[in-house]
Amino acid sequence: MGSLCSYLGPQKNTNIRVGLPAVCFVWQIAMIVLFGVFIRYNEEADAHWIEHRHANNISSDIENDFYFRYPSFQDVHVMIFVGFGFLMTFLQRYSFGAVGFNFLIASFGLQWALLMQGWFHHLDPSTGKIYIGVESLINADFCCAGSLIAFGALLGKVSPVQLLVVTLFGVTLFAVEEFIILTLLHCRDAGGSMVIHAFGGYYGLAISWVLYRPTLYQSKRLNSSVYHSDVFAMIGTLFLWMFWPSFNSAITDHGDGQHRAAINTYLALASSVLTTVALSSMSHKGGKLDMVHIQNATLAGGVAMGTAAEFMIQPYGSLIVGFCCGIISTFGYIFVSPFLEKYLKLQDTCGIHNLHAVPGMLGGFIGAIVAAAATESVYGAEGLINTFDFEGAFVNRTVGTQGGFQAAGTCVAIVFGLVGGALVGLVLKLPIWADPADDNCFDDEAYWEVPEEEESFPPVLEYNNHMMNKHQDIILSSAF
Amino acid sequence: MGSLCSYLGPQKNTNIRVGLPAVCFVWQIAMIVLFGVFIRYNEEADAHWIEHRHANNISSDIENDFYFRYPSFQDVHVMIFVGFGFLMTFLQRYSFGAVGFNFLIASFGLQWALLMQGWFHHLDPSTGKIYIGVESLINADFCCAGSLIAFGALLGKVSPVQLLVVTLFGVTLFAVEEFIILTLLHCRDAGGSMVIHAFGGYYGLAISWVLYRPTLYQSKRLNSSVYHSDVFAMIGTLFLWMFWPSFNSAITDHGDGQHRAAINTYLALASSVLTTVALSSMSHKGGKLDMVHIQNATLAGGVAMGTAAEFMIQPYGSLIVGFCCGIISTFGYIFVSPFLEKYLKLQDTCGIHNLHAVPGMLGGFIGAIVAAAATESVYGAEGLINTFDFEGAFVNRTVGTQGGFQAAGTCVAIVFGLVGGALVGLVLKLPIWADPADDNCFDDEAYWEVPEEEESFPPVLEYNNHMMNKHQDIILSSAF
Amino acid sequence: MGSLCSYLGPQKNTNIRVGLPAVCFVWQIAMIVLFGVFIRYNEEADAHWIEHRHANNISSDIENDFYFRYPSFQDVHVMIFVGFGFLMTFLQRYSFGAVGFNFLIASFGLQWALLMQGWFHHLDPSTGKIYIGVESLINADFCCAGSLIAFGALLGKVSPVQLLVVTLFGVTLFAVEEFIILTLLHCRDAGGSMVIHAFGGYYGLAISWVLYRPTLYQSKRLNSSVYHSDVFAMIGTLFLWMFWPSFNSAITDHGDGQHRAAINTYLALASSVLTTVALSSMSHKGGKLDMVHIQNATLAGGVAMGTAAEFMIQPYGSLIVGFCCGIISTFGYIFVSPFLEKYLKLQDTCGIHNLHAVPGMLGGFIGAIVAAAATESVYGAEGLINTFDFEGAFVNRTVGTQGGFQAAGTCVAIVFGLVGGALVGLVLKLPIWADPADDNCFDDEAYWEVPEEEESFPPVLEYNNHMMNKHQDIILSSAF
Repeated sequence: MGSLCSYLGPQKNTNIRVGLPAVCFVWQIAMIVLFGVFIRYNEEADAHWIEHRHANNISSDIENDFYFRYPSFQDVHVMIFVGFGFLMTFLQRYSFGAVGFNFLIASFGLQWALLMQGWFHHLDPSTGKIYIGVESLINADFCCAGSLIAFGALLGKVSPVQLLVVTLFGVTLFAVEEFIILTLLHCRDAGGSMVIHAFGGYYGLAISWVLYRPTLYQSKRLNSSVYHSDVFAMIGTLFLWMFWPSFNSAITDHGDGQHRAAINTYLALASSVLTTVALSSMSHKGGKLDMVHIQNATLAGGVAMGTAAEFMIQPYGSLIVGFCCGIISTFGYIFVSPFLEKYLKLQDTCGIHNLHAVPGMLGGFIGAIVAAAATESVYGAEGLINTFDFEGAFVNRTVGTQGGFQAAGTCVAIVFGLVGGALVGLVLKLPIWADPADDNCFDDEAYWEVPEEEESFPPVLEYNNHMMNKHQDIILSSAF
Repeated sequence: MGSLCSYLGPQKNTNIRVGLPAVCFVWQIAMIVLFGVFIRYNEEADAHWIEHRHANNISSDIENDFYFRYPSFQDVHVMIFVGFGFLMTFLQRYSFGAVGFNFLIASFGLQWALLMQGWFHHLDPSTGKIYIGVESLINADFCCAGSLIAFGALLGKVSPVQLLVVTLFGVTLFAVEEFIILTLLHCRDAGGSMVIHAFGGYYGLAISWVLYRPTLYQSKRLNSSVYHSDVFAMIGTLFLWMFWPSFNSAITDHGDGQHRAAINTYLALASSVLTTVALSSMSHKGGKLDMVHIQNATLAGGVAMGTAAEFMIQPYGSLIVGFCCGIISTFGYIFVSPFLEKYLKLQDTCGIHNLHAVPGMLGGFIGAIVAAAATESVYGAEGLINTFDFEGAFVNRTVGTQGGFQAAGTCVAIVFGLVGGALVGLVLKLPIWADPADDNCFDDEAYWEVPEEEESFPPVLEYNNHMMNKHQDIILSSAF
Repeated sequence: MGSLCSYLGPQKNTNIRVGLPAVCFVWQIAMIVLFGVFIRYNEEADAHWIEHRHANNISSDIENDFYFRYPSFQDVHVMIFVGFGFLMTFLQRYSFGAVGFNFLIASFGLQWALLMQGWFHHLDPSTGKIYIGVESLINADFCCAGSLIAFGALLGKVSPVQLLVVTLFGVTLFAVEEFIILTLLHCRDAGGSMVIHAFGGYYGLAISWVLYRPTLYQSKRLNSSVYHSDVFAMIGTLFLWMFWPSFNSAITDHGDGQHRAAINTYLALASSVLTTVALSSMSHKGGKLDMVHIQNATLAGGVAMGTAAEFMIQPYGSLIVGFCCGIISTFGYIFVSPFLEKYLKLQDTCGIHNLHAVPGMLGGFIGAIVAAAATESVYGAEGLINTFDFEGAFVNRTVGTQGGFQAAGTCVAIVFGLVGGALVGLVLKLPIWADPADDNCFDDEAYWEVPEEEESFPPVLEYNNHMMNKHQDIILSSAF
């Protein structure tokens, strides 16, 4: 039925029969080779664990990092695949693309992430190997999140081959900026306000800006939701919302670090919901709520707590963060996105500017402020060292300095996103990627075999035609 | 399209543009202030944990309560937001309201619950602070469940402002009855048959009874499901059903307490499914199953095991509980609900009478009987003390006395629900809440911006009109 | 509306009003009696745990197996009920049956599985009791999976009573083959490539082959998806995909065993996605992706890692397995299933041949090869013993012998599936099971009360009739 579109204008060639399989096969074979050369199990996942345990006097298997992090890993995994995937099913005729391409991007990206993050963070110089465990899997999922956020800005306007290019460069850029921010600048960013959300948000916006489509209005009829697609999107929203405490606590310190990060995120999210609802209702003259706001801005508190969640921001501090970010994000959906589209020529399908870019940036600066305000009386002497990892080369760093570096880290993430995105956008402008024409956007018909039958039962059109034929007989017989 | 309703009768004003934002902002600001005054991290979530660990000779971070309860917390969290939310999406045109208002109520309620439960149970008199950890989050989610159950009776018939009032009083009443039942009467009620389900069920029924709408039949056309809304509701049912073992075990004793509660609930639920299916098929002359029963009554075993799950009820005991409650609940949907509506003027949209009120009450009494039947040979001397917490002031309580108190606790919960609900119902009858008119119930159009386009592709109506116009030409030309 | 079907041909009697309730009640009562005689809590779930702990010098409650396995159990539980259930909702008019009968089968089967597996593996000869804990629940869920896989081949063509028969025998056969493979042959098969997938797949195929319906094309119009049913199915796909690492690691050894199994499965699944996408695109002349492939073949890597996941297959080995199985499974959907249907008269609704039977068989042989290739340098001396459980009567078994036994185990699973399925198929051909007629297949109307109204708002048919009536007036008045 979507093929109706084919009558509306000239079509670009969206045939990906050669390109997509070629990229997938080449890439997957490269991954196998590189994994063979570089990647092994770490000592907690290796069959030598029992010997490692005895040698290190570890009293029980329960001390294996698996039991500290696996439940959080699974929650993060759900956020990446169901959360991001279903959040984007809101378009009436792009649900296959939303959930299917999200699946493809993440599966593709996480393998490359294990390598890139391994080379930067976990390469053992003595053996030349990267040793992976459950924390590596969480980090790989996080790394994909950056590219999935960018996908949100591009939703419906690019081909799957382009998305794989976005992911390839996105993961690469992510690993580099993460190395600079976490290792060189020694920032803390457990839930990734900076490295994931600010980076991913600005990366996607820059790409989308370069790929501006002046006649996108031609597919405007498809760039909206229908009733049930909005309900599907709420599945994504809720799984993101519920599991965000796991996201922000997945790789924080064992014990109080994970515990505190979960509590803070839980509270910030709850607070976001109330201010989002309030602003959404205020923005409509009849006081009606807008699903776009409920689906997205309610999550802003989680994004903004990505850095500060593991700090002693206190429960009321978390509520304040959620309060403000719910307002800012909803405000963004109401006023800023239309402004950006009109004056900056920025087409941002899912509004990642309001959900990831801005709250992520704010989250980075909130983290800087909370870090700078840390005191030994609040954290305890040991707690302060543990929380900010003031060890080794950083043993003499003060909290004030740490705050400065956190702010610098946020800027690094944004610069990487903007510059990297602009460059990737230029690559994607090459006429070889089988992207859809302007009047063919937001339509699964371009890249998917869409079922032809409609849900109406019995088929309404046929039934009506039948009625009309009967009808016509009456008419004709009555006319003559 | 739902705006068609506007032709059917006089409309009440459902504009919530002032009321809803006002309540949300005032409330959220109050929460921030109260959290600032009262709420801090407990010693397991505070950065001083490392010092606490050493001082108390705790050998490992894995002993942090976070690792005992966080996976169960996340399951409970899913039940509250996806489980309850999607279970209520079954109405053809109230899915936004179901999942959206559920989201709002729970986010609103959990903050107030942390304070109310904190004041009653965790206020440290030496510092005047409430110290929260993962168990507090679980309890806050539980506390919201009471109000969400009440929402089930009111679904489609009240405004979001009214729902916030229901939640505000619901959480308050919950905290008081919980204090009486768990602390003063020293009952055990880990999964809340009494404090959550019996209370929440009767609370919602009493409100609904006071708010009786004699001409509700005017919106009867919308008070039913369509094919896909029933499938959405099954998402809610299944997440509730699967995670109910976590619900009943989330705050039970470490070790055998959590382990046993999960097993018992798992078995009771399985047993409920079979008797629900059996009764559903028997009740239809063609033997056909009814989705209403499958969506709801299959959960009755979990509700009824809320108290007894942590006791030594034995696996066959759990099966018996599920067996009976599946029958009773399905029977309720077939016969009791229509009776209540006709003769008691009780309009209970989701049938919470059959899923929460009655199974919850039964669960309370089952708990009383199982407690009274406990023996030292079955539990072990230490096990008996641990399970019923016969310590401190209660060191001399016998199991028989405990059983009596459990039964008394059930009655307290019901009385709180009925009396509290009646009073709240009276408050909600004030003509200031922007509730919908009788012919405007069960319709998202009242409080949501509903997408205008339908899924039919190409648009059926336009197509048909087009056909008819063509048709008419033929007619006209043939007629003259 | 589906009742339109009733005009298309003679109907079989699908009334299950006597049969289904009778089976459910008899069965559930039998379960209660047998659980009463045989089943008790094991020492970790019993109130005597505290004494057991002290007697065995267990330092903390966290050492209770509950904390090692409960998060994985819940993930497996989600796979069984939401994963399998929603994966099968892809048919346009059989979503109630898919998710509802899946619910019934699993609830029915898990009780019988606890008994059957208990008798074979956990019966304490001194007391005559079976002692259950969280691992028993996981195994019971696994055991149901075999029958749910078989359901995939039969979807839409059998009555719920027949499905209960399939499950009763399926669980029984499962317990026997599992005893032979795991205990007598001493194979390792943590994620069940052999005992679950190969067995379940061939069991379902054999039943379907016996029940061949030559005129099934009569309900061909319903044997396909619509847009939203494909989106629902993706919920199933993703929860299966995300939680498969938990499935394969749920019952492996504490510590490195669970850790490694999760990593391997995660990687194999990611690799499967890329080759599935590649092949799906290649198979369509426009390069378009097919939802059937994305929904199913992406999971093949998880199936094929069911045996080898706990071995030291290395990360690149997992990628290779996923790579190959994604190709093989997609190839199966494109070429093999149509071939089987045409030439072998095998009607396999969900294509379990390609998702479970073949990848399961391959997984068994992959496990055999990886086991035979194990060395002490890779596993460590203790690690090798732990991984393959070379203890007791098997202390002298070599890895080569182990590999041989693993291969033999795979054959046992296939033979049990084929022979058992053929016999069960014959039982199901008896004319007493209220199965649907050929033109009534794939239609919920047969066994469910389906909502009558359609989603079109305002109701299209009524509206059109109204238009036509008006229309007719014009016509009539113009004609005369």
